[in-house]
Amino acid sequence: MSHTYPTAGPATDSEPVNATVEAAAAAFRPWAATPAAERARILEAGATALDGARDELVPLAVAESHLPEARLSGELLRTTFQLRLLADETVRGDVYGARIDIADPDWPMGAPRPDLRRVKVPMGPVLVFAASNFPFAFSVAGGDTASALAAGCPVVVKAHPGHPELSRRTAAILVAGLATAGAPAGLLGLIEGEEDGVRALRHPHVAAAAFTGSIPGGRYLFDIASQRDVPIPFYGEFGSTNPVFVTPEAAAEIPDLARGFVDSFTLGIGQFCTKPGLLIVPRGSQVLERLSDIQLPGAAPMLNTRIRDGFRTALRELTSHAGVRPLLGSKGPEHAPLDAAPILLRASARDVLDNPELQEECFGPTALVVEYDDPKEMVELAERLAGQLTATLWGTPESDVEELVAVLTERSGRLLWNQWPTGVSVTHAQHHGGPYPATTAPSATSVGTAAIERFLRPVAFQGFPQYLLPKALRDDNPLDIRQRRG
Amino acid sequence: MSHTYPTAGPATDSEPVNATVEAAAAAFRPWAATPAAERARILEAGATALDGARDELVPLAVAESHLPEARLSGELLRTTFQLRLLADETVRGDVYGARIDIADPDWPMGAPRPDLRRVKVPMGPVLVFAASNFPFAFSVAGGDTASALAAGCPVVVKAHPGHPELSRRTAAILVAGLATAGAPAGLLGLIEGEEDGVRALRHPHVAAAAFTGSIPGGRYLFDIASQRDVPIPFYGEFGSTNPVFVTPEAAAEIPDLARGFVDSFTLGIGQFCTKPGLLIVPRGSQVLERLSDIQLPGAAPMLNTRIRDGFRTALRELTSHAGVRPLLGSKGPEHAPLDAAPILLRASARDVLDNPELQEECFGPTALVVEYDDPKEMVELAERLAGQLTATLWGTPESDVEELVAVLTERSGRLLWNQWPTGVSVTHAQHHGGPYPATTAPSATSVGTAAIERFLRPVAFQGFPQYLLPKALRDDNPLDIRQRRG
Repeated sequence: MSHTYPTAGPATDSEPVNATVEAAAAAFRPWAATPAAERARILEAGATALDGARDELVPLAVAESHLPEARLSGELLRTTFQLRLLADETVRGDVYGARIDIADPDWPMGAPRPDLRRVKVPMGPVLVFAASNFPFAFSVAGGDTASALAAGCPVVVKAHPGHPELSRRTAAILVAGLATAGAPAGLLGLIEGEEDGVRALRHPHVAAAAFTGSIPGGRYLFDIASQRDVPIPFYGEFGSTNPVFVTPEAAAEIPDLARGFVDSFTLGIGQFCTKPGLLIVPRGSQVLERLSDIQLPGAAPMLNTRIRDGFRTALRELTSHAGVRPLLGSKGPEHAPLDAAPILLRASARDVLDNPELQEECFGPTALVVEYDDPKEMVELAERLAGQLTATLWGTPESDVEELVAVLTERSGRLLWNQWPTGVSVTHAQHHGGPYPATTAPSATSVGTAAIERFLRPVAFQGFPQYLLPKALRDDNPLDIRQRRG
Repeated sequence: MSHTYPTAGPATDSEPVNATVEAAAAAFRPWAATPAAERARILEAGATALDGARDELVPLAVAESHLPEARLSGELLRTTFQLRLLADETVRGDVYGARIDIADPDWPMGAPRPDLRRVKVPMGPVLVFAASNFPFAFSVAGGDTASALAAGCPVVVKAHPGHPELSRRTAAILVAGLATAGAPAGLLGLIEGEEDGVRALRHPHVAAAAFTGSIPGGRYLFDIASQRDVPIPFYGEFGSTNPVFVTPEAAAEIPDLARGFVDSFTLGIGQFCTKPGLLIVPRGSQVLERLSDIQLPGAAPMLNTRIRDGFRTALRELTSHAGVRPLLGSKGPEHAPLDAAPILLRASARDVLDNPELQEECFGPTALVVEYDDPKEMVELAERLAGQLTATLWGTPESDVEELVAVLTERSGRLLWNQWPTGVSVTHAQHHGGPYPATTAPSATSVGTAAIERFLRPVAFQGFPQYLLPKALRDDNPLDIRQRRG
């Protein structure tokens, strides 16, 4: 497997990256000891500072990412909402999973049960590798940072080179907002460059890492995290092909399906990890007719030259397959240097079954329409899928999809019914994860309030007097949180 | 790092180990689809079959492990209790973490919230590496097997060579009990030999692995699991030194402390992963006087020659340190070939601070009494600890231990107050885990009902009609489980 990160030499204390990690380590105890309600107040101040800097940050993001202003403005809203929601979740307290088993002399395992109480505590400083495609929501102040801070962990962000100035300003504004409200020094640090990212990942004070990006770069970092003397949890989210299965009934009866699909796979010039890359439809169905009536959007700039070049290469490989033919091309030509033109391809289910590489993600504004002759081929295709962030079904009450749902449940982190996967709502029940290669940690989500759990670990207290117990475990429940008893 | 497992060649279908893994894979869908109440009924039948075979199994365990009959009889009771408790936990249903977010057009993140529902589902076939020191509770029918089966995952157990015949009979009796109650074929398989263990670990159908044993062997397997093309979660529990901190007040006021310590570190000839290996006491305190009045138990056989030889080597290294002196020896000589005689050593806190290797686990009937001159040295020692399964404090209401508790919370999975760590109760709030090298997965426990969570992963369902949702997520809550809403 190729990798994009160079090997860093051994870290020495003279490295600035070490100073940033050590400052985060110094902030760990005071931040972990700060009550959740107080942490929420401080994170709220950080969110407010970012909201207040909208007029500076959004234009910077437009300039560096080439994404539209309206999209980035909405993304900043989502990002500060996320900071607040995750902070509130820790106040609510379910996330600590408090459990209390009082002593029981008659516990039927052959020995009395002692007084045992379990609560989740912060893991330690977290290293966050920012992504390029969401300059706010998956970057410096994004979901990984928000969930680690909410969990009680300081954060070192390795900036994405795709938006360096935005990263610096976001960090400066967030740090200032947090500091004004009383955050410990060093709570959030920013480092830049791939070598420093690797150095930080090897630093003994880093307790966990989170990453959103490509498989090769992410796998390289996962391997480093796993091969440390002290391995650490590495929450890598690598993306997926996000197949969409269209039953014969849905193909015949849901006219908006074709339009919705085009809107979804071209959204953000196809630069979503949940972009639907496969549309699996009955051969010769009305979906194909309706698609041919649609004009694809014109070319638009991608995030940077590396992504643009990667898209071109992947597209060339895809179209070089004998079974793959163009279905719809973009009307407009590619003007600007970063431009990519949407293109829709087609192949038969048999071709995809025989060539598993046709199921691989192609990051950018393209998708493959796969025609099946028999609905059973949908299950066959699902059985061959690698791990996915999402899988989508379009059907009607008449559709026979039970087996398909069962197989897709094994293969993916989120299943959708008659909706498109490109929106990832930040909620309590969200799961943005999935079996490898969608992620490296199939139990973890990087979106939603459950994302906090990645940076907590349980500790049990046995026979402790009330005054020495964490508040979450005391009999009088001073935090007023859910305590599961016995 | 040395390793004890040989490298296996590429697996081929002619290997019997593959047939076992593939049978488990074939059992996955029927078992995962079996309702929790029905799974509990089947596991109950398995537990009953093991209870009924007590008169056959316990003598076999005595012959192969050299542990006393009473201990093994109690351990079998614990093992079948555990199977029942974990099965009941899945019926109770908290473990599925059901969350329901109904659609909300006014969700304040800039886009409406869709209907999202999240539930945890079984991961797939689990490979369990059995341990030698608990021939029932951490072996074929032990906690890893029980929690995987309860989660809905088939299990392949790699037998420990220390009790081969017991492993075969336990598996045969459990399999027969499960089958009579209607379990799918292949639900539990047994393999033997290190090469087959590695082959199974590399098999694409294995979704997760659990291991209890030594650091070198466990780390070797962790590395294989992490370096697969598709890495899998590896829940390794490697053991620890389990330091015990005695405050000046406890040393002066708790006379039973010395006796309790000796009983705890010599229990099972010191072959517990929670054996207290360090007793940290005030220099010249009454604890030392009381210890010198105690006669250590006589020599007794260890589990096998490898463990006995490992103990001798580790003890020789420990006693070769200039600062380490004997405090108490066993009265009786070593008679039988596997015999080990308990021995208690002493050193100063300064010696241990200067020689971190003195904090390493020595598996067997020995411990190091560490004398401090200033209670502050307890915090210093705690700061230098590697990850621990347990850490214990002995104190009185007058003891100033807040800082020590805070540091030990960072370093360990279970903290005890005025109790001994060698009992590990199977309860809801138990946590048998801890930072590396105590375990490879700091969020996971291998004992207690939370152990089930290791073999589950969440899936979110978006916009699904009621009839296609898993029962755990339906509005009418037919399983009567906890569903977190909104």
